[in-house]
Amino acid sequence: MAGKFIVIEGLEGAGKTTAINTVARVLNQHQICDLQFTREPGGTPIAEALRNIIKNGLDNEPLTNKAELLMLYAARIQLVENVIKPALKIGKWVIGDRHDLSTQAYQGGGRELDRIFIETLQTQVLGNFKPDLTLYLDISPELGLKRARSRGQLDRIEQQSLAFFERIRQRYLELAERDNTIVTIDAAKSIAEVTAQIETTLNAWLTN
Amino acid sequence: MAGKFIVIEGLEGAGKTTAINTVARVLNQHQICDLQFTREPGGTPIAEALRNIIKNGLDNEPLTNKAELLMLYAARIQLVENVIKPALKIGKWVIGDRHDLSTQAYQGGGRELDRIFIETLQTQVLGNFKPDLTLYLDISPELGLKRARSRGQLDRIEQQSLAFFERIRQRYLELAERDNTIVTIDAAKSIAEVTAQIETTLNAWLTN
Repeated sequence: MAGKFIVIEGLEGAGKTTAINTVARVLNQHQICDLQFTREPGGTPIAEALRNIIKNGLDNEPLTNKAELLMLYAARIQLVENVIKPALKIGKWVIGDRHDLSTQAYQGGGRELDRIFIETLQTQVLGNFKPDLTLYLDISPELGLKRARSRGQLDRIEQQSLAFFERIRQRYLELAERDNTIVTIDAAKSIAEVTAQIETTLNAWLTN
Repeated sequence: MAGKFIVIEGLEGAGKTTAINTVARVLNQHQICDLQFTREPGGTPIAEALRNIIKNGLDNEPLTNKAELLMLYAARIQLVENVIKPALKIGKWVIGDRHDLSTQAYQGGGRELDRIFIETLQTQVLGNFKPDLTLYLDISPELGLKRARSRGQLDRIEQQSLAFFERIRQRYLELAERDNTIVTIDAAKSIAEVTAQIETTLNAWLTN
């Protein structure tokens, strides 16, 4: 039987890493133990090379928003074709740290790139491939960035204005509203409460 | 006064390098001496990093046709925004070794990717930016590859079947037919004859 693809989404500092560990633990409790972890952008040699350019730039060359968008999709299709689909095919479950929803939110919402164009890229590049379940960890940019900053240096994307992250959050919420495979988790709560929300959501979904 | 963008296109072995030198010499004869040379994919640090992955791959990871297409456009917009447009703006003339027409021909014709999608990328990524003049050096794949092989090792794209290059040539010819900024040069002739064709074409265009 083919595996399932579960994705964790959210702003910097929303608690994605803790959520990923919770998802893995709940899956294990359901005897689903053959897990593959991915992160985006990245996860293959080519996708990691693209991630490095997107995150850190190269020789101080300005990276245009359009090139960033195209490189994100190039990295994504490499990961999907070379890692995620082969894993699902042999029955592994895949837990993704970000996937396409991040591009919709960051590039469509944050950078305000043409959403019709992003949707065309999504359709043309990914076809009908999409996660079986997405957990969106909702948090205010103020709280998220406060948590992220406490972890250390911020990268090129993390060094943006609060308004940028507010637009991302609004886009995440809009998209979660209209897609019933996306579940919004209140990530402003304590770790114990967020973990409980994820456990409840996942247990219900797995036994449905 | 803004400069002009002249592009040389054609299959491997069509004689692009010689043609570029001819174009530069003719421009010089017309007192146009401030020239910028570009090649695609490439020409900026980020675009060259993408070129390297496209040409040589990375860690033997299969490069999907879609990722290749997206990376070509990412490299192109970096070159256009960071090199070509700034050069034209200060009055330089730019001579390009390949540009968008290559993607239409190689990815649309050779790899048979969705042409509507490629046209959408062209429009969305480049807007209405296009070369002022393109010289398409037309040659049969048999003759072109024979010449290219005599130069040494072939790269990932050059190691394709003859049918692949035949589809590229047909697409080049189709596109040249419908766009009057593209002039087809018979590149199967001797170097002296090809050079004469380019000189005649360019002199006529410059004095028009």
